[in-house]
Amino acid sequence: VAAPPDTLAARVLAGDARAIARAISQIEDGDHAGSGGAALVGALFPHTGRAYLVGVTGVPGGGKSTLVDQLIATIRAVGLKVGVLAVDPTSPFSGGAVLGDRVRMIRHAGDPHVFVRSMATRGHLGGLAGTTGDAALVLDAAGFDVVLIETVGVGQDEVEVAQTADATVVVLVPGTGDDVQAMKAGIMEIADVFVANKADREGIDRLVQSIEAALSLQPVVDGGWTPPVLKTEATTGQGVPELWETLCRFRDRSEALRAERRRTRAYARVSALTGDMLFARLQQALPAGALAQAAADVAGRRMDPYAAAHALVAQAVATRGGSI
Amino acid sequence: VAAPPDTLAARVLAGDARAIARAISQIEDGDHAGSGGAALVGALFPHTGRAYLVGVTGVPGGGKSTLVDQLIATIRAVGLKVGVLAVDPTSPFSGGAVLGDRVRMIRHAGDPHVFVRSMATRGHLGGLAGTTGDAALVLDAAGFDVVLIETVGVGQDEVEVAQTADATVVVLVPGTGDDVQAMKAGIMEIADVFVANKADREGIDRLVQSIEAALSLQPVVDGGWTPPVLKTEATTGQGVPELWETLCRFRDRSEALRAERRRTRAYARVSALTGDMLFARLQQALPAGALAQAAADVAGRRMDPYAAAHALVAQAVATRGGSI
Repeated sequence: VAAPPDTLAARVLAGDARAIARAISQIEDGDHAGSGGAALVGALFPHTGRAYLVGVTGVPGGGKSTLVDQLIATIRAVGLKVGVLAVDPTSPFSGGAVLGDRVRMIRHAGDPHVFVRSMATRGHLGGLAGTTGDAALVLDAAGFDVVLIETVGVGQDEVEVAQTADATVVVLVPGTGDDVQAMKAGIMEIADVFVANKADREGIDRLVQSIEAALSLQPVVDGGWTPPVLKTEATTGQGVPELWETLCRFRDRSEALRAERRRTRAYARVSALTGDMLFARLQQALPAGALAQAAADVAGRRMDPYAAAHALVAQAVATRGGSI
Repeated sequence: VAAPPDTLAARVLAGDARAIARAISQIEDGDHAGSGGAALVGALFPHTGRAYLVGVTGVPGGGKSTLVDQLIATIRAVGLKVGVLAVDPTSPFSGGAVLGDRVRMIRHAGDPHVFVRSMATRGHLGGLAGTTGDAALVLDAAGFDVVLIETVGVGQDEVEVAQTADATVVVLVPGTGDDVQAMKAGIMEIADVFVANKADREGIDRLVQSIEAALSLQPVVDGGWTPPVLKTEATTGQGVPELWETLCRFRDRSEALRAERRRTRAYARVSALTGDMLFARLQQALPAGALAQAAADVAGRRMDPYAAAHALVAQAVATRGGSI
């Protein structure tokens, strides 16, 4: 499948950095299923499926950015091209992510085989995992061998983003009870590899032990892979080559399992997009302001939210002359 | 609107603790719009709108649970009834939330005017805010004057949960750079009140200053309310009565603003429920396995996700004889 040479998709396929940046912006700007992102993803999709998508998540302050920076160096050292998506909810107060990216951009500025990009989350309520997944497709199509997806924070949203990857690294640090918090936030079960970062800190061995103790309570699933617990010092790079080696080992295991993950991912993605499309159709079928009026009725306690939603669906169906 | 005396809804309205617990379980178990939760919410809804919903969010390890525990005591001391929803993603490794709740349950065990409950998030993908909101309605209908909604973690999901409340408290602690992380995670803009907890720790004044500096960069919006920054020591209870006083002051300000928030919330809720109902209709219209087949096609790179979603919608519409 060859795209005409002058399209954005064709330039992405040729690895043009500006085109890649523009393509990701287009995906970020599209906030519904009928956006420009859909056509772009459609054009790029047949050229994807080759990149290794690695999610890096964990508690805030765990040194994820530094670790990702070191991973870039390790992956480049073996001659592979690497793209990074730093998924970071934008805040008017923030700017932190942009600064972090700039530092990395400067370090790798002379290297055309490294591409670093922040993904903003505002305006993508519920769609962050989808947007990130589409951006990863762009990097995949552009020929990057590895795409690192780094998340900030610990929440269900981060879990979903991490699940768009082929492998998930969960980063924890000793002290401050962060390990317990991570367990509570539900990011323990999604780990394929654990990293105990800041290995020079007191409490590192206790952290490793507590992770291993938690793992021993888990039934061995997922094709017999027990998530290893690695110690790293992201600031010096110690342990990072071993992390990459472990990720390669994970990649080389059961192909069937990876295929299964991709199917699960595709199911979630298609379901979400279908929901978006149906909702857009509903809005088209309803008179302007119908949804706002229903919300006002609910806020005024004149109707409960379920009854309001039922009424809207019934009204839209009647307008269109029946069905769905 | 009086419910027949023998229904679950009637027993909730009478303040029966077992009925409240069962009602919340019913809401948690219902994973789609047509669940038992819908009828229950419909019956309770006319009796709601009186409780003051207060969200408590912030970085993990910030002492939120202890703060909430002290708030319960403060609120009880002025004679008000208080319900607590501890929103905590369940993990097979965890148990932390349950333990924390038990401690609180024991402390307040003799007090029928305190109700504490964990909300599990598994199986409620994308619906956590809705589930929590419905559970808050149950407590509201049962006569609790205040409902505290406590979240674990920092993510978009936590932000959405916090936004189901009338007022949002963001808890930060000095040191460990958590303040910066909170800003990055986008929880700064949703704060109505900031709490700098662990006021006995070094760096507390620097934390307060950095929050105030960040606030000074913000245009004053939201009816002229500038979020105050309070210092607390949750372990001793210091500063907690002032926090409650501030929350009361926030509640007593512009009624118009609160109505506006409730409309926004209702809009989001009705939209989400409508989307759920449409998706359920789509699944009914499609042959069994159609969605799984589409997912397999996407995973196998035979079709891109947008095209697959379009095809499913088209197929469902055709099955039903046209429209939406």
